[in-house]
Amino acid sequence: MTDPVALRTASRPPRLDAVSKVRGGLRYCGDLPPAGVLHARLVTAPVAHAVLNGVDAGAALDLPGVLAVLTAADLPIAEPDDSRVFQPLANGEILWAGHPVAIVVAETEAAAEDGVEAVSLDYTALEAVLDLEAAARPDSPRARRSKHGRQASLENVHGAIGAPESETIVDEELSDNVVRRYLYRSGDVDAVMAQCDVVLQRRYRAGWVHQVPLEAPVAVASVDADGALTVHTSTQALFITRDMLASVFGLPQTKVRVVATPMGGSFGSKFALAEPLAAGAALALGRPVRLAMTRTEDFLASNPAAAAVMDVRVGASARGDLEALDARLMFDDGAFADLSCEMLAAFCIGGPYRWRAFRVKALGAETNRFGTGAYRAPGAPQAIFALESLIDELAQRTGRDALELRLDNLVGEGDPRIDGIAWSRTGMRQCLERLRDHPLWQRRSELPENEGVGVAAGVWTGARDAAGAVCRLDGDGTVTIVTGIADMTGAESTLAALAAAELDLPLEHVRMVSADTTAAPYAPPSGGSSATYLFGPAVRAAAREVRDQLIELAADELEAAVEDLELAGGEVRVKGAEFRAIGVAALAESVWSFGGSMAPVQAQSRTLAEHAAPLSSANLVHLRVDPDTHEVTVLSCVAVQDVGHALNPALIEAQIEGGAAQGIGRALLEELVHDGSGVLVTDSLMGYALPVAEGTPRIEIQLVEEPSDEGPWGARGVGEAPVLAVPAAVGNAIGAATGLRMTALPMTAARIWRARQDDAR
Amino acid sequence: MTDPVALRTASRPPRLDAVSKVRGGLRYCGDLPPAGVLHARLVTAPVAHAVLNGVDAGAALDLPGVLAVLTAADLPIAEPDDSRVFQPLANGEILWAGHPVAIVVAETEAAAEDGVEAVSLDYTALEAVLDLEAAARPDSPRARRSKHGRQASLENVHGAIGAPESETIVDEELSDNVVRRYLYRSGDVDAVMAQCDVVLQRRYRAGWVHQVPLEAPVAVASVDADGALTVHTSTQALFITRDMLASVFGLPQTKVRVVATPMGGSFGSKFALAEPLAAGAALALGRPVRLAMTRTEDFLASNPAAAAVMDVRVGASARGDLEALDARLMFDDGAFADLSCEMLAAFCIGGPYRWRAFRVKALGAETNRFGTGAYRAPGAPQAIFALESLIDELAQRTGRDALELRLDNLVGEGDPRIDGIAWSRTGMRQCLERLRDHPLWQRRSELPENEGVGVAAGVWTGARDAAGAVCRLDGDGTVTIVTGIADMTGAESTLAALAAAELDLPLEHVRMVSADTTAAPYAPPSGGSSATYLFGPAVRAAAREVRDQLIELAADELEAAVEDLELAGGEVRVKGAEFRAIGVAALAESVWSFGGSMAPVQAQSRTLAEHAAPLSSANLVHLRVDPDTHEVTVLSCVAVQDVGHALNPALIEAQIEGGAAQGIGRALLEELVHDGSGVLVTDSLMGYALPVAEGTPRIEIQLVEEPSDEGPWGARGVGEAPVLAVPAAVGNAIGAATGLRMTALPMTAARIWRARQDDAR
Repeated sequence: MTDPVALRTASRPPRLDAVSKVRGGLRYCGDLPPAGVLHARLVTAPVAHAVLNGVDAGAALDLPGVLAVLTAADLPIAEPDDSRVFQPLANGEILWAGHPVAIVVAETEAAAEDGVEAVSLDYTALEAVLDLEAAARPDSPRARRSKHGRQASLENVHGAIGAPESETIVDEELSDNVVRRYLYRSGDVDAVMAQCDVVLQRRYRAGWVHQVPLEAPVAVASVDADGALTVHTSTQALFITRDMLASVFGLPQTKVRVVATPMGGSFGSKFALAEPLAAGAALALGRPVRLAMTRTEDFLASNPAAAAVMDVRVGASARGDLEALDARLMFDDGAFADLSCEMLAAFCIGGPYRWRAFRVKALGAETNRFGTGAYRAPGAPQAIFALESLIDELAQRTGRDALELRLDNLVGEGDPRIDGIAWSRTGMRQCLERLRDHPLWQRRSELPENEGVGVAAGVWTGARDAAGAVCRLDGDGTVTIVTGIADMTGAESTLAALAAAELDLPLEHVRMVSADTTAAPYAPPSGGSSATYLFGPAVRAAAREVRDQLIELAADELEAAVEDLELAGGEVRVKGAEFRAIGVAALAESVWSFGGSMAPVQAQSRTLAEHAAPLSSANLVHLRVDPDTHEVTVLSCVAVQDVGHALNPALIEAQIEGGAAQGIGRALLEELVHDGSGVLVTDSLMGYALPVAEGTPRIEIQLVEEPSDEGPWGARGVGEAPVLAVPAAVGNAIGAATGLRMTALPMTAARIWRARQDDAR
Repeated sequence: MTDPVALRTASRPPRLDAVSKVRGGLRYCGDLPPAGVLHARLVTAPVAHAVLNGVDAGAALDLPGVLAVLTAADLPIAEPDDSRVFQPLANGEILWAGHPVAIVVAETEAAAEDGVEAVSLDYTALEAVLDLEAAARPDSPRARRSKHGRQASLENVHGAIGAPESETIVDEELSDNVVRRYLYRSGDVDAVMAQCDVVLQRRYRAGWVHQVPLEAPVAVASVDADGALTVHTSTQALFITRDMLASVFGLPQTKVRVVATPMGGSFGSKFALAEPLAAGAALALGRPVRLAMTRTEDFLASNPAAAAVMDVRVGASARGDLEALDARLMFDDGAFADLSCEMLAAFCIGGPYRWRAFRVKALGAETNRFGTGAYRAPGAPQAIFALESLIDELAQRTGRDALELRLDNLVGEGDPRIDGIAWSRTGMRQCLERLRDHPLWQRRSELPENEGVGVAAGVWTGARDAAGAVCRLDGDGTVTIVTGIADMTGAESTLAALAAAELDLPLEHVRMVSADTTAAPYAPPSGGSSATYLFGPAVRAAAREVRDQLIELAADELEAAVEDLELAGGEVRVKGAEFRAIGVAALAESVWSFGGSMAPVQAQSRTLAEHAAPLSSANLVHLRVDPDTHEVTVLSCVAVQDVGHALNPALIEAQIEGGAAQGIGRALLEELVHDGSGVLVTDSLMGYALPVAEGTPRIEIQLVEEPSDEGPWGARGVGEAPVLAVPAAVGNAIGAATGLRMTALPMTAARIWRARQDDAR
């Protein structure tokens, strides 16, 4: 019999590296460090909507150090597609003021910047579609004329939201700008609503906000002699970025290597943005290209969180039993509808409440504003602001305690969610009970004038996905854990503790390695509050297998049965005869004596979290509204969150603190403001107001631990929940302080003043 | 119950990256490419032996671009040790002419080179120990006065040679320069020898030779904000280098990352040489340092193959039955006795032959020449040259056909080797039979005058060790194999074919990844002809586990029992109902749909080759000796080798061809020549004669396939065997052509002329 290896070598295939060696393209150690890295800067569009006729690069190319001005046609993109990664540069049509039109590539960043100034664009202005509601009307002009009808999307990447009933909204005529139309419904909303004692309806709005990580998007791309692409990047999604780049440039996945560098913040913004630009330029020029976006480029040209207009109607009994929910959520999908915010918002608009009947329409409309991106619980703070404001108003209207009303209407385990999936166990009841019993809530009536306490609650779905991890015993008795995680929020630190616990080793004997796409096990993106929830079981499983291997090796050495042995305190010992023991370090040394006679101690796990575990969060906000200036001062904020199991309270609290601060920012300060022609006004931190330490109160944090079924030690995700309810709680506190019902985010002093004027009329 | 994770986080440990983030030391993507890499050049000693009083760096430091001149005291070495990695720079004592005394570190290579010229050394000359035999005599001065008595060593790193009976040679008085003394013996050699009909004795010599890889040693080292060391290097031994650097600089293994770059040749020379120099400089300066040795630095300061003096006596019956072997092998261990060549030579001096009694002394003596290193079958070509020359002479003396005599005296499976280990099965008999039947041998008597055919045979031990591999199914249906192999001789190409065979995939659907020490599974060094033999089973095991996982996933999809399914032709199908099938690519796509519901398909193996499988090789060499100039022209060379199973004949043949060419070089051309004071004369390719294509005949290659027990598909190692017997076969061919018995390598025209003069006397 001819063996199958021989079949594969019968044609005498050359060495894998033969061609690159023979052609002199292979890079050896002596070729380090890599030379000739070029720097890129973006030419961004000055108008919101236009036909791009041409780019005049002549003057730029005459500048010293400028090597190339690349436009869409210069990037070797395999096949056009309507998602942004496939169109990293404007492709004949300018879609927003800030749309990258060209990349200037130069020897230095300064030269590239000079080059950008020297590029002139030839374009023919088109009518800009700037108003979200108008964009959806049947008579609206199109915000995006040139489309290919094919779209890769990050939609529901975590698989945690059930499919909508239908994508066709039959009772409304809408323009073609409305590219996504979801409908979730149950029962006869109109009939139930008609029977309700109280029906409240309001229109809520939320503006565009930016994630503003400390580190703006950055990627460094290079191409080797075999045409293989390597991209170093600050990313949340190692493998998604690899897969996207492979698709975009028509490369096999094996020819794309993505290396995740330490991340200087992200909050959802880093799912492939600088990468296709740097990679496209590197592929076009055959030189390494670095694109480190400036703060202004990040404001103008990246993927912030979408604005929304949300019409919500709730019906209830006289004593505040929730009966019917009718919601129409319109999200601004901007120039690129890559993320389905509206779907996530649809889940959130139902809240953690029982409804006899509901109808939730979720619409996404293209406009000439940005490309949309993910930002910490995409769509949720907006939707929760709307729902929880209205619930609060309902409590007031029905004379109920706002917390009791919420507690009375909570869903139970097994009840259907908006998306039809059964609710799994949550810790929301405990969260709300903690707030109900909190002195701030109990004594809210004793506050001075112009102060108020608001409450709000929110649930996030959590994520489900597979994961993998490697655990390797090293020669000095320490263990190395290898994953493909993009480390955020200290997730790796928690994973190290999980491994240390399984192996009963000190924390400092565990080293975490986040490998690149060539060597890492399957890794889901870090997002959707998933890192610990998904990677935790993978790390534990790999560590447990290593523990079993150690016990097996020790059984030989100690001449004992495997079942009589335990791993504890850095040694494997005979239960009940602990003087018969062998240290992990001694076993490690034997394993790592090259030429020795022990198999290596190492394991790779493959785990699957089949169900997402919801995250619950509730806030009290205490604030003061200046009666003259209408400026809001947040005096304190209580954050209660169900984390399932607090694996590392310090890291969890840090996330909650940061999330609450971002919530306060979204409530009071942050908004990307455009002028009437659609040009961004807030294009730097001079104009875009972020919460700073000075204006942020101490966040009082309480953790609830209602264990999840699949998380490590019952842990749930953490990262997204802290921001969910804060804007609503702030709004409700403003209501308590002023009697005014705020309906637009951010709730600036100007808007509060206007609300007071409207109220006075 | 408090869970063990909570115990580990009760002290609220900060994030693993907290300190480096807070201190601003963490390098982000925007910090790429790394800036400020410095270049190093070596100041080498001009004399063979001296006390180093001081290094005057003043003039060098005044040169533009020169940043530092580092001496031994400047390198942050943890604890002194007598091995070279622990003393990369002369530590108060110059041990050979070429010994690195200082490193000049500068902004450019040119500036570093200028700096070297400007450094002046203050030393007091000592008597140089240059003659190997004299060095061993009790009255010899010491070649190395300053020693610490502790030595890490690469000795027998593959664990394939049995321990010697004793390290004490009782019947000889020897100087302290003789640092290694091995004795292997069996039976009463003197008594058996006394009964022999024929006893032949000769003294053989071999000079120092250099590995001369195309790429000289090179390493680039950097230190991150946490003090962790990263070294990119051209190395054969990823993890050994890591472990060595950790020991040398007193770092935990987790703080050393070694990245193997593509190797531009090595042949045994790259087991940590430039690394401690570059790393020591980087640690000392806190800047990245690149040391790319020049050809002359490589000749002067690296670790070539040791010279030897070998006294061999064999006794036989009148018809040539081998009876007794008495050998004393003295190897020049030079300045650093890091590699135990003499132990490997001791194994080889027994040949593949049965002996009624033997006594093999293997001695290693320090001298003031180089540090020794490994070169393709260390010690073997020298020892085999000695034994096979004498066996050839014995055949002539007893009137036997040289091949028949060898065949008659071959060991059988289970017979004891020199080191007491039982011989396992070899293909040596088939190798010799092929040569016996070869027309060149059959018709050797018909050759013209001054031409001759020589035969010789050699066995190499092979290696034993553990290994590991990862196999991961990627999203496009291809598989990635991850190991920590240092790719040489196309080993990765063969491993890819093994994985493709297990999974019945096309070769181009397998991608090989050699990961660095952070992420790779345990990996033995690439050396000792071990790569395919050790990594092959690891790759196969991982691939088989992936196959099983694929079948299990498909069983769910196809609603079939696992045992009814097979993986073939890129799909999993029901045996006998092949229309019920699901493609590997389709399964892969499901696995890689983020947020999906399938566990990843990936596995990590841990394998152990418990026994080394010997490599057998035999050569015929046909040559002509010019009667006037005594120049030798090799006319043809036949190489027969037992490879166990030819996994990729093209790659195997390339190795055999290269090895035979190196054997011809060692036979006729190559020698590192010193002047009378121990200064190297052949310090460039102007003086050191390498075989070139013009003088190398076509190598006729025949493969024997006597399967090994543990190698993949029965494969054995390949790399070292091709060089083993070539020098001896050349010597025997010269004997056949001229009647002269050559006893020294290389057999230059001058030496042949001298042998003729001696013969005529």
